[in-house]
Amino acid sequence: MTTTVWTRDDLRLEVEQELRELLARSESAAESYGPEFARLWALASNHVGRGKLVRPLLLLETYDALRAASAPSPIRSETVRIAAAIEVLHYSFLLHDDVIDGDLFRRGRLNLIGELGEASPCVSRPGDGRHWAQTGGILAGDLMLSCAHQLFARADLPVEQRIRLLDLLEHTVFETTAGEFVDVGLSDGLIGPDLATVLAMTGRKTATYSFELPLRAAAILAGASLELEQRLREAGWYLGLAYQLQDDLLSTFGDAEVHGKDAFSDLREGKQTAIVCFARLCGEWSGIETELSEAAYSIAAAQSVRRRLRACGAEAFVQNLVSDQMTAFRNLLANESEIIPDGVQRVLLALQARLDGRAS
Amino acid sequence: MTTTVWTRDDLRLEVEQELRELLARSESAAESYGPEFARLWALASNHVGRGKLVRPLLLLETYDALRAASAPSPIRSETVRIAAAIEVLHYSFLLHDDVIDGDLFRRGRLNLIGELGEASPCVSRPGDGRHWAQTGGILAGDLMLSCAHQLFARADLPVEQRIRLLDLLEHTVFETTAGEFVDVGLSDGLIGPDLATVLAMTGRKTATYSFELPLRAAAILAGASLELEQRLREAGWYLGLAYQLQDDLLSTFGDAEVHGKDAFSDLREGKQTAIVCFARLCGEWSGIETELSEAAYSIAAAQSVRRRLRACGAEAFVQNLVSDQMTAFRNLLANESEIIPDGVQRVLLALQARLDGRAS
Repeated sequence: MTTTVWTRDDLRLEVEQELRELLARSESAAESYGPEFARLWALASNHVGRGKLVRPLLLLETYDALRAASAPSPIRSETVRIAAAIEVLHYSFLLHDDVIDGDLFRRGRLNLIGELGEASPCVSRPGDGRHWAQTGGILAGDLMLSCAHQLFARADLPVEQRIRLLDLLEHTVFETTAGEFVDVGLSDGLIGPDLATVLAMTGRKTATYSFELPLRAAAILAGASLELEQRLREAGWYLGLAYQLQDDLLSTFGDAEVHGKDAFSDLREGKQTAIVCFARLCGEWSGIETELSEAAYSIAAAQSVRRRLRACGAEAFVQNLVSDQMTAFRNLLANESEIIPDGVQRVLLALQARLDGRAS
Repeated sequence: MTTTVWTRDDLRLEVEQELRELLARSESAAESYGPEFARLWALASNHVGRGKLVRPLLLLETYDALRAASAPSPIRSETVRIAAAIEVLHYSFLLHDDVIDGDLFRRGRLNLIGELGEASPCVSRPGDGRHWAQTGGILAGDLMLSCAHQLFARADLPVEQRIRLLDLLEHTVFETTAGEFVDVGLSDGLIGPDLATVLAMTGRKTATYSFELPLRAAAILAGASLELEQRLREAGWYLGLAYQLQDDLLSTFGDAEVHGKDAFSDLREGKQTAIVCFARLCGEWSGIETELSEAAYSIAAAQSVRRRLRACGAEAFVQNLVSDQMTAFRNLLANESEIIPDGVQRVLLALQARLDGRAS
């Protein structure tokens, strides 16, 4: 038996092809419901593959490391499908997130909602093109959420593995939804923004589905022990929390040209990040607060808030939080080297190295 | 072996208990994410059971008729669970429908979004309580959609039956979503309102999941032939289309005190029903159109539109469409009496009789 060594680019191609095939299966059904719905499906199919595929690649690399030999096998095919399903799930969360935040851009380009809105020239009543586009965002998100569940439900695996994957999916959807609900409650001023609440939300809305889910799914698919799955969950939490805190730093202090989001969108939306939490405890808070309320309307105010947040130490505070996660992550690897195999450690360390250098 | 004869009330209690149990399983998980998310879950759990349970009862009655003896059995337990799952799916559609339409009432009482909005007194910025409530509607809909899929995915059935049920669920979600998307496109003036498009949308957004789904699921669970499943699908389409056309009639001409929806909400939202489609072809249309555009702001205008729609024959036209569906349904039963067993015919005829007399 020859074993294949898959590069990241090979894995990416594998996931892209799987995504294309599974979305193409519903294309003719979509067309039977008229040109508008066919277009919605085509847009969703097109946008879902635009990401960096971080989550499916993490799943496949971890699975291959656990199976040591990465020769094609029936279970590996199922693993590629679950990897694709996780990308579809991710996209369903992004879509509803964009609807909730009223965002029209993603990765520096129009998102699905933005494209739907642009292509609605014959609007009969003012504002209705926007409503139609938001509706498309909600419904496309539903289709993607349903699709992800269908892929998990159909996994051709022994029943015990299938149920473990379904339990993991259930937990993930629950926790991610809770994180998003608290995030919006904090932004809208309905939940008090203490640091513990903000940090729990920060992890739940991202770490759970972006890091824990692919790592734990890889463990389940590779037939690993519950103990290893639990360690991977912890590793995923540390890296995922670090990732989201970096995201907050980039959104506030980074270069919009590079990270591709709306400049200052977090500040404009009143997002309660760990950055703002820290600033609230500073002597300069009242001035920052006044400018924050103007940041929705004025770029100058947003730029000034940014300077003040840096000056009061909020940026350094959150950079330290990121370092804390990275340290906890490295300690976990060092202490659990008997449980976490070398190959998986290498995958995790390479992931950490990519996070350390990220600017987008 | 004794066989039990279940009354509709028995079946209702069975479904209610199943719903309570399955939603209670996630209660403590919800509480671990803080009081706000616990409240969201509690509200969703409370509201999901408020309906008339038309869909689960139709599934169970049809299943019991097909199995002739309705003694408890492992497959019957799975059937009760799928019946509950269909109610959860229904509720997920209602939630996103209400978000899309901006509705705060359902069955004459505040819906989940309305209740969330009422309970947000400490809003820091104007309008944010509404945004938080809409967010809750989107996320609770996601949780319910996910829950329905989980229940289908975990059905403890032979693989062929489980896959048939998953195919049915996939088709249903796709078609219902397409119906809703076209419905909103018609209302927002982005899709031309010809009668064929409006009738297809009318069936897809309701008949598919409310009638075809429970009937076909019953056939699959009872191990019936594909031929019978197909006939039940047709029967479901006729009754479902009749039901939605009746709904349109009630929303426009019925007594809001009795049917429990916002009075004139269809007219205010510019819904493109078969009623409006017919009126568009009448000589009186330009007068009706002017008043329709005012119906969003004036009850007097809405009442006048109602009188004019009646006078131009639109009400009678749609009543005839309902009769056409009922005739097609009775012909189907008569022509397919060899395929559709007597017991199932009785269930379907009783359902038709309830539709004939409905005022809400």
